[in-house]
Amino acid sequence: MEPNSNTLTYKHLGIYTQNENVVYMRYDCHVCKSEGFEALVRIRVSKAPRSIVASLNVVSSNMLLPGEIGLSDAAAQKLDVSENDLLHVSHLEPIASLGHVRAKIYNNKLDREAYGHIITDILAGDYSNIHLSAFITACAGDRMDLDEITDLTKVMITSGKTLDWNQSIIVDKHCIGGLPGNRTTPLVVAMVTAYGLTMPKTSSRAITSPAGTADTMEVMTNVTLSSDEIERVVNQEGGCFVWGGTAQLSPADDVLIKIEKALDIDSEGQLIASVLSKKAAAGSTHVVIDIPVGETAKVRSMEMAQKLQRDMEAVGRAVGLTVKIVITDGTQPVGRGIGPSLEAMDVLSVLKNEAKAPQDLKERAVLLAGELLELSGKVVSGEGNRRALQVLESGKAYDKFISICEAQGRFSLPVPAPHTLEVKAERSGVLHHIDNRKIAKLAKLSGAPRAKSAGISLYVRLGDRITKGQTLYTLHAVTEGELRYALDYKNDHEDIITIL
Amino acid sequence: MEPNSNTLTYKHLGIYTQNENVVYMRYDCHVCKSEGFEALVRIRVSKAPRSIVASLNVVSSNMLLPGEIGLSDAAAQKLDVSENDLLHVSHLEPIASLGHVRAKIYNNKLDREAYGHIITDILAGDYSNIHLSAFITACAGDRMDLDEITDLTKVMITSGKTLDWNQSIIVDKHCIGGLPGNRTTPLVVAMVTAYGLTMPKTSSRAITSPAGTADTMEVMTNVTLSSDEIERVVNQEGGCFVWGGTAQLSPADDVLIKIEKALDIDSEGQLIASVLSKKAAAGSTHVVIDIPVGETAKVRSMEMAQKLQRDMEAVGRAVGLTVKIVITDGTQPVGRGIGPSLEAMDVLSVLKNEAKAPQDLKERAVLLAGELLELSGKVVSGEGNRRALQVLESGKAYDKFISICEAQGRFSLPVPAPHTLEVKAERSGVLHHIDNRKIAKLAKLSGAPRAKSAGISLYVRLGDRITKGQTLYTLHAVTEGELRYALDYKNDHEDIITIL
Repeated sequence: MEPNSNTLTYKHLGIYTQNENVVYMRYDCHVCKSEGFEALVRIRVSKAPRSIVASLNVVSSNMLLPGEIGLSDAAAQKLDVSENDLLHVSHLEPIASLGHVRAKIYNNKLDREAYGHIITDILAGDYSNIHLSAFITACAGDRMDLDEITDLTKVMITSGKTLDWNQSIIVDKHCIGGLPGNRTTPLVVAMVTAYGLTMPKTSSRAITSPAGTADTMEVMTNVTLSSDEIERVVNQEGGCFVWGGTAQLSPADDVLIKIEKALDIDSEGQLIASVLSKKAAAGSTHVVIDIPVGETAKVRSMEMAQKLQRDMEAVGRAVGLTVKIVITDGTQPVGRGIGPSLEAMDVLSVLKNEAKAPQDLKERAVLLAGELLELSGKVVSGEGNRRALQVLESGKAYDKFISICEAQGRFSLPVPAPHTLEVKAERSGVLHHIDNRKIAKLAKLSGAPRAKSAGISLYVRLGDRITKGQTLYTLHAVTEGELRYALDYKNDHEDIITIL
Repeated sequence: MEPNSNTLTYKHLGIYTQNENVVYMRYDCHVCKSEGFEALVRIRVSKAPRSIVASLNVVSSNMLLPGEIGLSDAAAQKLDVSENDLLHVSHLEPIASLGHVRAKIYNNKLDREAYGHIITDILAGDYSNIHLSAFITACAGDRMDLDEITDLTKVMITSGKTLDWNQSIIVDKHCIGGLPGNRTTPLVVAMVTAYGLTMPKTSSRAITSPAGTADTMEVMTNVTLSSDEIERVVNQEGGCFVWGGTAQLSPADDVLIKIEKALDIDSEGQLIASVLSKKAAAGSTHVVIDIPVGETAKVRSMEMAQKLQRDMEAVGRAVGLTVKIVITDGTQPVGRGIGPSLEAMDVLSVLKNEAKAPQDLKERAVLLAGELLELSGKVVSGEGNRRALQVLESGKAYDKFISICEAQGRFSLPVPAPHTLEVKAERSGVLHHIDNRKIAKLAKLSGAPRAKSAGISLYVRLGDRITKGQTLYTLHAVTEGELRYALDYKNDHEDIITIL
């Protein structure tokens, strides 16, 4: 067989690889033999007019027959291949933008064009995880100045779709995560749209947390809407609560975030570019950003929060966004519920002005809605909080919430989980510390967010006087096995809640 | 089925993944279902007493049946599993040393203990490529000071096996690569051992070049020797030429080098730690390091070479090695042959003092051997070159070379490749530039180092007056297809050799 005859027949293998594209080729395939495996760590696989870059895995079993080639599921989807299609494989040409990444590694400042090349190649799938990790690391640790963060943000804005609402003021909010139960978004949307502002809210699902806003809203309404449906809902109601996953806004960000999660770092520059590019691409003009600060929150010190505030406001100005930062208390979870349905119950309780509604969640939502009302110029400075509270307590926010849900196709009430278990205090004393990360982990082990009704109801707050035997929180789960999973973790970790 | 019953039956799949360990589990496996795939990107797989960390690939075909689990070939080997063994899977506990990597990303200085933890976890296989890339990037761009490079070197020395020769002086040489055909090592070993020094030389195979010293020596003798065999040869002959791959010296380096190759960066700190840790672990005391400098060599400027010289000598002192740096011309290939057999022919030609022997290769080898003779104190300063030349021209170096080869099991002559093609000058003029990287690529496309006899014979040197039609080089290949491969590349790249 000719060494340069590089066409093979596709066979479906059904392997989902999570990370990179993988191509499977036999050890005795002529391409492998003529080039050597080591030289072929990454290759280009094409089916005209599409082509992808994939990592080579070499197969020595009859999973593939001679002349056959396999692809990981996501890679097959990207190439749009079917069984028995002919695929062409070739050497990976050098990735020119890696020169910019190397320059950044060696402490050089990059310009907008360089960031543009890098983001283009990342979106084309040409970067391996090794390359992505190097780019993120080289940009972390204050190695990007404000010009660079601005350039990266601008490049990311135009890297995917952008929305245009034909209105001069579009408001949005964002929370620099890390606080379980901090589900203010649905409340803020309800208040500000009830007040007449436009807030087409796209939210994410949980990546490492027990619930994302999209997970919580999905308990009560449909969140997977087409662009046309979103437009109809927003034109009719002034707002929406939808999952942003299909919107393709700043898609490079989705690639980078996965690597940042694996490294457990939030490069300040990348964080700013990530948040602001998504907002600008979604057509927002005025954005309030909530930064909870606490030892076990994402932002751990007031100093970090203030630097983030200055830099975010400056980059916002440079890309044409009016940004207001609100630094909040991030020392403990917000509201009572942690998990999609439990958080939905909190949201409804606040909207209905029930006496049992969690006051901390209500106060935070009113604060953020009030800031948005002021930032947009809808109400004068100093009046925002009062007006937001008014629209909430009058029931107008509740009515608007139900209207939006119905416009999205349904309004459903959250249902409780079948299995629960109360966790009681083992000593008396004062509640001294709550570990946000560990309580989030506990909720996830109970089954959240996959099992919508799973999670935790937390009844206590920092500073509370606790009596031995008092219920601290309830675990909710769909299976007894998951309840036991969570309980095992709780028994192994005495420092989830500290009473002194 | 219980969600915490995590035992599955191993099935051999025959997939070689090149990079990370991969574990294959079915989409409907209880562990995947109870935890969610996203949460399980990396998991621990155990078969007592061994355990590894692997990336999860999710299988939706009948490649695996319910209750079965698969592993990539290298992972299966590390765990020592056989068909139908029961394997246990569990969550990956947090990798504590990643905290040090994050600290380094944020520009903090790490101490020896921190580097120790990182290297230990890397050797345990706990780091993914994402983590490895972040560690390398965070250490690149002059972000390690001399203390840190020294600490990393010390940690790497003790991370694997170390050799002890019971002698006060053990010499070695190393070349900071990048120059095709620069095969001085066999000549240096022959000269200095003929002079009575001990030089137990372990060499590498090619990773991205057309030939490593081990590939070239394998043409003429056996290079895969056991520790006992190496000891016998060195005790008898004072030296050896063996492949270092089985020696397990500084094994962390092997892991890091793969990532550096993918990034195409040579972090100075990592480079120094890599080279010096291998030498110290091999029991060397006096080391000469050749740094070729040239536009298309690994080290591109005299300034970089001089900084590397200062830092390498300083770290050498700190870890107890006497290091001498020799900065050489890296503007063009050395010798005539590029490829294992062709380089072996050059080596033999120099050893036999043939008139046609490439003088540049001879001069370089004599220079380095002379430096080693002086550095070791065997001859007085200023006398090294003359003594090395003497031992070469007297035929003693040749005799020693043959003796060592025979002690290693055989001496064989290199054989020529069956297919050749002469590439001729398309214009007259002066030879202005040779691209080391592209000429190396051309040799690889011809089949080197896999096909031992493949490669290039280069007949011209920078500054030569060239006449149109004159043969510039000959391509050698084992198949006509490979010859065509190389020719296609040559035709696409006019700047391999520039005549002005």
